[in-house]
Amino acid sequence: MKQKELLIKTTKENPKDEKSINAQLLIRAGFIDKLGAGIYSYLPLGLRVLENIKKIVREEMNNIDGQEVMMPSLLPKENWEKTGRWNVPEMYKLENNKFGLGWTHEEIVTPLVQKYTSSSKDFPKYIYQIQSKFRNEPRAKSGLLRGRDFIMKDLYSFHNNSEDLDNYYEKVKDAYFKIYERCEIKDKTYFTLASGGEFSSAFSHEFQTITNAGEDIIYVCKKCGASFNKEIFNKECICGSKDFDEKKSIEVGNIFKLDDKYSSVFNFKNEESKNILMGCYGLGITRVMGAIVEVFHDERGIIWPKEISPFKVHLISINADAEEIYNNLQKEGIEVLYDNRDKSAGEKLYECDLIGCYLRIIVSEKTLEKLSVEVKKRKEEKTQLVEIKNLIEFIKNEL
Amino acid sequence: MKQKELLIKTTKENPKDEKSINAQLLIRAGFIDKLGAGIYSYLPLGLRVLENIKKIVREEMNNIDGQEVMMPSLLPKENWEKTGRWNVPEMYKLENNKFGLGWTHEEIVTPLVQKYTSSSKDFPKYIYQIQSKFRNEPRAKSGLLRGRDFIMKDLYSFHNNSEDLDNYYEKVKDAYFKIYERCEIKDKTYFTLASGGEFSSAFSHEFQTITNAGEDIIYVCKKCGASFNKEIFNKECICGSKDFDEKKSIEVGNIFKLDDKYSSVFNFKNEESKNILMGCYGLGITRVMGAIVEVFHDERGIIWPKEISPFKVHLISINADAEEIYNNLQKEGIEVLYDNRDKSAGEKLYECDLIGCYLRIIVSEKTLEKLSVEVKKRKEEKTQLVEIKNLIEFIKNEL
Repeated sequence: MKQKELLIKTTKENPKDEKSINAQLLIRAGFIDKLGAGIYSYLPLGLRVLENIKKIVREEMNNIDGQEVMMPSLLPKENWEKTGRWNVPEMYKLENNKFGLGWTHEEIVTPLVQKYTSSSKDFPKYIYQIQSKFRNEPRAKSGLLRGRDFIMKDLYSFHNNSEDLDNYYEKVKDAYFKIYERCEIKDKTYFTLASGGEFSSAFSHEFQTITNAGEDIIYVCKKCGASFNKEIFNKECICGSKDFDEKKSIEVGNIFKLDDKYSSVFNFKNEESKNILMGCYGLGITRVMGAIVEVFHDERGIIWPKEISPFKVHLISINADAEEIYNNLQKEGIEVLYDNRDKSAGEKLYECDLIGCYLRIIVSEKTLEKLSVEVKKRKEEKTQLVEIKNLIEFIKNEL
Repeated sequence: MKQKELLIKTTKENPKDEKSINAQLLIRAGFIDKLGAGIYSYLPLGLRVLENIKKIVREEMNNIDGQEVMMPSLLPKENWEKTGRWNVPEMYKLENNKFGLGWTHEEIVTPLVQKYTSSSKDFPKYIYQIQSKFRNEPRAKSGLLRGRDFIMKDLYSFHNNSEDLDNYYEKVKDAYFKIYERCEIKDKTYFTLASGGEFSSAFSHEFQTITNAGEDIIYVCKKCGASFNKEIFNKECICGSKDFDEKKSIEVGNIFKLDDKYSSVFNFKNEESKNILMGCYGLGITRVMGAIVEVFHDERGIIWPKEISPFKVHLISINADAEEIYNNLQKEGIEVLYDNRDKSAGEKLYECDLIGCYLRIIVSEKTLEKLSVEVKKRKEEKTQLVEIKNLIEFIKNEL
């Protein structure tokens, strides 16, 4: 894509009404536009990032036999009244008092799977969707970390017995860590015991990514590494230790054993008259996008991980024609953003660092004299001259 | 995918509360589930169909330089008040009286593109999204043809002058016909003059697909082929003829020259102080899915066009092991639904016709005796024995 045509405008000043780093950088770099508190449009660069995250999540959900569906967002009052959640503060209700907007889907997926199963042989079933969610969020001040109109992946599992639920719960945990690995935040992410909240009377588990911007506080046991959300922390670890690190973190995923909390409401039983057991597994796609920016940035801008980068390559021409190089990269299926605009080298490099694509390639008179281009990873300072005749192979090795 | 694991349950009886063929067949065949009038869940088969249609639409929009974005669904009252559309009957308002749900996005995209452009050199711009829309629809009785929570592609174009708008309008028209060609409804689809409605004081154009289920009526000139929506039909064609065919049809797309209707409200001008001119181009993804079912079905079920089919191949084993054939097809990247359930041949073939995948492959003792399988297209009656050793090549040729 040629940058001249792209719907983008970068700015040097931070937006006055945004305090979070993720919103400041994503707005300044032209990834998102703010329509209201917690409500953003995703511009072409931003949507590409979202689609990259969705692709990873979808692949890892399919790898654990998840089946993708899409439930509505306009949800009838009756379903929520059955579970007593019609009047919770999260719910956006419509003026007609007939519908609420989906902020979670237990009330829909439980009777749905009930209808499409008939025998204990039909279980387990694993059903997920990736979709807009709506939440009446009073504190929508953290950019993509806390939205009113946001995108979430929610997976629901259905089991005949608790052993089966326990096994799948572990599988989901592993799949989540694969997702975080591909997003390059795994090393900073803790599997943390937390309260069950609205969803469950028992505990839940959160995936908490360490960063200074975190709204959550977790305690990590210095002896065994177990971690606990502040809400439920009681100063002694299961291993007996009382020695903890306190860390700020962002919740990037949350999984619950619902057991029969919802199946009992809908009278969803197997032939043996036992309630079907459920698990529920959330992961905020837009929130992960925000968390990645909080973790990966410097004073110059965003530093996208390889698989998440909106374009793998940002190609910059400085007083030189890079059209042929651009065409060759495109032909090889490499995603390139090509900046051939009539701007100064300084401006182009400034914007390039702000946007933060994984690789930067500079083509200038100087590099062309050596039949070469200059290649640099956004996350490293080192630059490297690569001969044009070897460029495709070099780039493919880096990707 | 193995059918045993799929979230699906087919029924022989038509649902009592659905009168349209598309809803009856899609529900009976396990593609969609009804949550309320005009509100459906897309089950795994249904979502696959939607994704196939989205892919076609996305490719054809990108081919005419469309840039994909995603605007929110939760839209502030102020934007709608500016254009005087806050109180239109289509709008679902929230109880808090601050937000309305997006049923179209002129009020959002116009100031958005205004913000991200600064010079006449920045035009034209072509911005689209594929996304849930919400519409307070009193007559939600036509299945996917008229939803309250549905999916639409909406493209908006921005121009310096009307010549440029006119040229792009023609390009979009061609792109739409390419979409309908890939959906195999092009031959039945007319480019029809219609009223501008809410959007424009001038005329608009609709793409109307002929089918008995159509809620619209169009008049096609027997002399020149021009067609007119009943709303604006005045009994004489531009060519002078007064001889018309009256046909029932479904609107599968609708395009408008908005000119400066919205840019003038938002004071969106170029340097020469001329209002930016806009076009707006809608295409209902879920509606096209419904229209395809209305056009392509018989008394046994749905007949999916090749590119739309949820799986390209439905593999049926009858008292035989087709596991190796299934694995080989999968390995070659061919999308296969494999029915190895413990059911009678009659039941399996009944369901296979109801679901309507493009190709059916039967593996039975009889075919295996001849080291062969039986291949049949859903849309044809002819069956063909194909040797297993040639199967992959044969199938690839058919797809």
